[in-house]
Amino acid sequence: MEKVAVRSVFFISDGTAITAETLGHSLLAQFPDCHFRQIRLPFIDTTDKARRCVEQIKAARIIDGHRPIVLSTLVNSETLAILQEADAFFLSMFEHFIGQLEDELGVHSTHVVGRFHGIAESENYQSRIEAINFTLAHDDGQSNAKLEQAEVILVGVSRSGKTPTSLYLAMQFGVKAANYPLIPEDFERNQLPGDLLRHHSKLYGLTISPERLSEVRRERRPNSTYASLENCRFEIEAAHRLMRAHHISFIDSTSRSIEEISAKILQEIGIFHSAE
Amino acid sequence: MEKVAVRSVFFISDGTAITAETLGHSLLAQFPDCHFRQIRLPFIDTTDKARRCVEQIKAARIIDGHRPIVLSTLVNSETLAILQEADAFFLSMFEHFIGQLEDELGVHSTHVVGRFHGIAESENYQSRIEAINFTLAHDDGQSNAKLEQAEVILVGVSRSGKTPTSLYLAMQFGVKAANYPLIPEDFERNQLPGDLLRHHSKLYGLTISPERLSEVRRERRPNSTYASLENCRFEIEAAHRLMRAHHISFIDSTSRSIEEISAKILQEIGIFHSAE
Repeated sequence: MEKVAVRSVFFISDGTAITAETLGHSLLAQFPDCHFRQIRLPFIDTTDKARRCVEQIKAARIIDGHRPIVLSTLVNSETLAILQEADAFFLSMFEHFIGQLEDELGVHSTHVVGRFHGIAESENYQSRIEAINFTLAHDDGQSNAKLEQAEVILVGVSRSGKTPTSLYLAMQFGVKAANYPLIPEDFERNQLPGDLLRHHSKLYGLTISPERLSEVRRERRPNSTYASLENCRFEIEAAHRLMRAHHISFIDSTSRSIEEISAKILQEIGIFHSAE
Repeated sequence: MEKVAVRSVFFISDGTAITAETLGHSLLAQFPDCHFRQIRLPFIDTTDKARRCVEQIKAARIIDGHRPIVLSTLVNSETLAILQEADAFFLSMFEHFIGQLEDELGVHSTHVVGRFHGIAESENYQSRIEAINFTLAHDDGQSNAKLEQAEVILVGVSRSGKTPTSLYLAMQFGVKAANYPLIPEDFERNQLPGDLLRHHSKLYGLTISPERLSEVRRERRPNSTYASLENCRFEIEAAHRLMRAHHISFIDSTSRSIEEISAKILQEIGIFHSAE
C-alpha cells in the first residue's frame, strides 16, 4: 500500500462538531497509513461563517496539493449548500441518514442544531453533571457517604487506572462511579473493608502489569519503594488474591483505553441503557 | 406531526459502540417527538455474539410491534452479514462512508476494529490521560505548580461550572485545563492573583445566572449566605467587573452544556487541532 501525502480533514458542524469529530476519528482510524491534518470548525451557523470555511478549505487544498476531506454534520440547508460548493471530498453525515430515518419513522426531522445544543436543561444532562460531581467526591476512597448511590465501585492498587476510568464512566455514560484503592492493610488482612463488601455486586477490579505500574509510579515518585518493580509485583499479586477471594471480576488496564475498559465494565455489570 | 410508539434502537459495534452511540444520539435528537429505547451492544466480535444480537432484536420487535433501528459500526463482514439478516431498519455507518473514502484516498482500509481499540499505547492517548491528571491536580486552584503547562485556565465564582468543563476539555480534547475560583478577596482588591495574570492569554471566564447559581449552591449548602440569591448576585456582578477590568472573555454556562462551553472556549482561545 502506497503512502499518501498529508490530507486536511475538516470536521464542520452548526454545533460543537464533537459528533463529526468522533465519527471522523473512527473512519480515519481505518486508514492507518495515511497522514491527516485534522481541523475542527464548530458553530458554523451563519452563511458568512460558511463562506469563511470555504476559504479555509481552499487554502488547505493549495497547501496539500489534494482536495481536503470534509466531514459535516450541518443540518441547515443554506450553510450546507455553501459548503458543498468548496472543492472538497464532502461527506455529509446527516443528509445520508436523516432522510432514511424520516422514511422509516414516518415523521419529519426538526433540522435544528445538534445533540449538545439546548440539552443543558434536560434531565439527562443534569444527571450526567451529578454523576461527575458524585465521582469526584468518591475518588480514591475519599468518602463513604451515599456510597449506596454508586452504580459501579472500582477497586485496584494505586495508579491502576481507577480515576480516569471512573470519570469517563460519569462523563460519557452518566454513571455514578466511586473508586477505592487497595492498600497494604487490605492485603495483610486479605479482606476488603466492610463498607465495600456491603456493595459487592457493584465492585469491579482494575489490574495492570507490574512493569507498566512501576513505570507510571516512577513518574510520580522516582526511586521510591512504592514505584519499585518488586513492590509493584507484590501489590498486584496480593490484589489478585484479594479480588479472587471475594469473587470480584477484574480487567487489565495495561493496554486498554478508558473507553474500552468502561464499555466492558458496563457490559459485565449489566448497565446497557444509553446515557441520553 | 403524529406521535409514534416506542422504538428500540440498538447501537452495535465490534468495539466499544461509543462512536455508534454518539452518532446515534445526534440523529435521534432530530426526532424529538419520537420515543426511543436505546440499547448499547459493544464488543460484538464473534458470529455467536452476532447471533445473540439478532435474538435480542427479534424480541424487541415483538415487544415494540415495530422493527427496531440498528445503528452499526461493525467492520467485520461476517458479523455484519449475520446482523443484516435481522428484521430491523439497519444503518451501517462504516459501509456507507468507508467505501467512498477508499476511493477518494486510493487505498484499502484495514477493516480492523475501531477507534478505541489498541489506542492505549499511542502517544495521543497517553497525552489525554496526562491532561486528565493535570486537570485533577489543578482543580479549584489547588496548585500553581507547572501552571505554565496549562493550555486553558478557567476562572469563575464557585459552582459556575469550572470543574466539569475542565475535565471535559481534558478527557475529550486532551487539553490541560486548570481552574481557579474567584473569591471575595479577589473582589475586594478588584484584582486577580499575580500567578494567574502571568498567564493572561490562557484565562477564560465562566459565568452563570444568579438564580441558577443560588439553586446549585442551595443543593450543597441549604439556607447559607453562600447560597442566598443576594450573595450570588453580588459575587457574579463583582466577577463580571473583575473579568472586564482584566479583559478576560467569558461565557454564560446557565443554559449551555459542557460540550458547547468547551468547544466555544477552544475556538476562542484558538485551539483548533483535533485530539487524535
